[in-house]
Amino acid sequence: MSQQYQCRIYVTLRPSVLDPAGVAVESGLKQLGLRGVEQVRIGKYIELTVTASDETQAKQQLDQMCDQLLANPVIENYRFELTPVKPLSVNP
Amino acid sequence: MSQQYQCRIYVTLRPSVLDPAGVAVESGLKQLGLRGVEQVRIGKYIELTVTASDETQAKQQLDQMCDQLLANPVIENYRFELTPVKPLSVNP
Repeated sequence: MSQQYQCRIYVTLRPSVLDPAGVAVESGLKQLGLRGVEQVRIGKYIELTVTASDETQAKQQLDQMCDQLLANPVIENYRFELTPVKPLSVNP
Repeated sequence: MSQQYQCRIYVTLRPSVLDPAGVAVESGLKQLGLRGVEQVRIGKYIELTVTASDETQAKQQLDQMCDQLLANPVIENYRFELTPVKPLSVNP
């Protein structure tokens, strides 16, 4: 039986890669008067659901997604979390 | 004494707002052969450090950042997590 998983994927630039968007946001925040802000890094946050036979297969699918489309492995890291979605109960 | 906090901010489109980027990614993933993928929503993930006198003040600063710059409150929701960064110990 297949199970649906709610997934949250975080894609971030590798620490060694310059983040011009982060620098711009940091400067913008300082101009707004927020002086204590530092080390701003902008990444992507992706929510999706995956249907798979088990958690291992779901994780394999997520790795494949991230490697092939969602992240650029040369300059980005990714991590993900997944939680099973309760199946609709049939005649409880 | 001021304390530094490591913050993770998640900005997502409100559920009622159409997400064309999410639709495009979902279609791309299906073309890669990943058929069980659904409900793809793309958001932003921002990491930064804030220096504040306490957690309440740090949270106030984060709310101000999100409302004024990081999120568009008309179409986006945000949430954040923060963890205190251990201060450098002086002559332990």
